[in-house]
Amino acid sequence: MSRQGSAGTGGPLDAESIARGVIGGNRQMLARAITLVESENPVHAESARRILEQCITEGRHAMRIAVTGSPGAGKSTFIESLGEEIISNGHSLAVLAVDPSSLRSRGSILGDKARMEKLTARKEAFIRPTASSGHLGGGAPKTHETMLLLEAAGYEVIILETVGVGQSEVHADAMTDFVLLLMLPGSGDELQGIKRGIMEIADAVGVTKADGERVELAKATASDFTAALGMLPEKHPGHRRKVLLTSARSGAGIKETWGEITGFFDLLQKSGELELRQLQQRSSLLRDLVEWGLRKAYRSDPAIQQRKAEIEAEVAAGRLSPFEGADLLVEAFRLRR
Amino acid sequence: MSRQGSAGTGGPLDAESIARGVIGGNRQMLARAITLVESENPVHAESARRILEQCITEGRHAMRIAVTGSPGAGKSTFIESLGEEIISNGHSLAVLAVDPSSLRSRGSILGDKARMEKLTARKEAFIRPTASSGHLGGGAPKTHETMLLLEAAGYEVIILETVGVGQSEVHADAMTDFVLLLMLPGSGDELQGIKRGIMEIADAVGVTKADGERVELAKATASDFTAALGMLPEKHPGHRRKVLLTSARSGAGIKETWGEITGFFDLLQKSGELELRQLQQRSSLLRDLVEWGLRKAYRSDPAIQQRKAEIEAEVAAGRLSPFEGADLLVEAFRLRR
Repeated sequence: MSRQGSAGTGGPLDAESIARGVIGGNRQMLARAITLVESENPVHAESARRILEQCITEGRHAMRIAVTGSPGAGKSTFIESLGEEIISNGHSLAVLAVDPSSLRSRGSILGDKARMEKLTARKEAFIRPTASSGHLGGGAPKTHETMLLLEAAGYEVIILETVGVGQSEVHADAMTDFVLLLMLPGSGDELQGIKRGIMEIADAVGVTKADGERVELAKATASDFTAALGMLPEKHPGHRRKVLLTSARSGAGIKETWGEITGFFDLLQKSGELELRQLQQRSSLLRDLVEWGLRKAYRSDPAIQQRKAEIEAEVAAGRLSPFEGADLLVEAFRLRR
Repeated sequence: MSRQGSAGTGGPLDAESIARGVIGGNRQMLARAITLVESENPVHAESARRILEQCITEGRHAMRIAVTGSPGAGKSTFIESLGEEIISNGHSLAVLAVDPSSLRSRGSILGDKARMEKLTARKEAFIRPTASSGHLGGGAPKTHETMLLLEAAGYEVIILETVGVGQSEVHADAMTDFVLLLMLPGSGDELQGIKRGIMEIADAVGVTKADGERVELAKATASDFTAALGMLPEKHPGHRRKVLLTSARSGAGIKETWGEITGFFDLLQKSGELELRQLQQRSSLLRDLVEWGLRKAYRSDPAIQQRKAEIEAEVAAGRLSPFEGADLLVEAFRLRR
C-alpha cells in the first residue's frame, strides 16, 4: 500500500529513516533522498532539509571531480571510460550526469541512445541524471546538496558533469576539488572565444576522441592548449596543469588521466590544501543557500507579491521607471517581518 | 585638462550632459555612458542611474536580436556578414559582442585576430565588446541597461552576442525580441546533449559555414534541427521556426536570415505581440534589478557582513550546519533597517 504514497518519493517514510538508509549505503533511500532535495514541493523541502542535516554530520568527503565541456565534446563516453578505470582501482563512484531526457520528454527527438550504459550496470557505480547539473547558474544549491548525500552514502569519488562555458563552470569549481575540461580535436580555434575563466579554473584539459585519423589534429590541439595554459598563472602553487590526449574508443589516456587526478589529490592532501578547500566548499554552500533563501523569502511573501504587482503595473504604465520600482521593492522587502 | 579626469570615463562631465549626448547620438558620450553602467564603482553607479533614468524616458525601441551558439560556431563572422546586410538596408546597428580580450589581457594567447574588423570601420555600426554579454547569469542587469542606452542613442537594430548553453540564453531571450541559434555543420549529434531550453527559445537556427565541402553535411544538420523543432511546440503562435543554411564566406543565406528576422518582426507588430514583449522586457529588467538590489543590500550592510563572518566561522567549526547558518543570515538581513 505504501508504494502508492507520495508520487516520485516512494511512500511516506520519515526523514530520519531515509537519512539512516542513505548513511547505511541503501541505494533506494539515496535515490529517494535526492528526489526530495530536487523537489520544488515545500513539504519535500522540509524533509530534504532534515535528511541533509543528518547526512552532513557524518563528515564524509569524496574526491569531487567536475568534468566539463561543450555539448558534443564526448563527456559521457569519457566519463564511462574513466569510471571503469576508477572502479577497477577499487573505488566506489557516483556520477551526476546531465539529463538528456529534458530534450526528449515530449517524445524521442533523436532516438534513445542510452548514456553510460556499461557504467550504469556496475554495482560500484551510482549514476544520477539530474536536470540541475547542467545548469548551475543562479546559485541553486541543489547540486551541492546532492553531493553531500552521495558523500554521506560513502561514495569515494563523485563526478559532476556540466555543460557549456560560463557560470556553470564557476559554480562547478566552487563545489568540486578538480576540474577537467574536455575539448575536441580541432577546438584550438575556440580558444579565441573561450572566456578566460574556464581556462583559469581547469586543473587539466583532456583532448577527447584522439584516435584514428584524428590523432595528429588532437596533438596540435593539445599543443594549443598547453601554450595557453602556460601563459596563465598556476591555479594551485606547485601543480603544473597538463593537457592529456584521450580516447574512450581506444582507451588511450584514460589511465593517465586518473593518475593525474590522484597525483593532484595527493599533492593537495600533503599540503593541507584539500582540507582548506573542503572548508571553502562549505562556505560556498552557505553563500548559495543565503542567496537562495533571500530569493525564496522575497517570492513567498504575499504582501511583497502584492506590492510587486502594483509596482509592475506602474512601471508598465510608465509612471515609475524600472529603477525606481526596484528600489521600492527592495526597501519593502527589508521592512517586512 | 578635463581629459585627465576620472580614468576610463573621460572626465568630470555631469550625468545630464552625458545623457543629452547619448540621446543626441554622440558616440563618445554613448561609450562613456556604457562604461559608467558597467563600472563597479558606487560613484559611477549613481551617475549611471541618472543617465539611465533620462534615457528610458525617450521611449525608443530597437529590434533586439540575440545571436547565440557554442564557441567556434562562427558567431562573430556571421554577425559581421549579417551586420553588413542590415546596414545596406539602411539601418543603424549596435552590436554587444563577447569580449575576447578577457582571455588575452595578460598577453596575447592566440594572436590578436581582430573581431568584426569590417563592421567596426562602418560609421553606421557601433560595436561594443562587453565582458558581461557572454555571461548573463545571476540576474545582472548591466547588459539590459546597456541596451537601453543604445536604444536612446537611436540605434534601430541591436545584436546581442552570447556564448554557451544554459542560463545565458534564458536571459538573452528575456531581454531580446528574436533569438538566433547558430550551429556548426555536423552538430546534429549535439542535439542529444542540448538542453531543451535552448531549442525552445530559438526563433530560428542558422547552420554556419555551409560552404565548400561542408554543404552536404550542413544540409543533413539542418534536417536534424528542422526535425527537432518540429517536435517542439511553437514559440510564437503562427510563426514556423526555420533552419537556415548560411555562410559568411560565400554570403549564402545572409539575406534570407535578415528576411526571416524582418518577417518575424512584421508578424509581431501586426499582432500587437511586439509591444507586449517590450513590456515584458521591462518587467524582466525590474525583476533583475530587484535581485541585484537585494544582493547588493545584503553585501554592503556592514552589520550583516559582521554577522556573516561570525556564522561562517561557526559553520567552519562544525557548530552550525550551512543550512542553519543560512537561515540565521536571511533572518538577520530582513530584520535590519
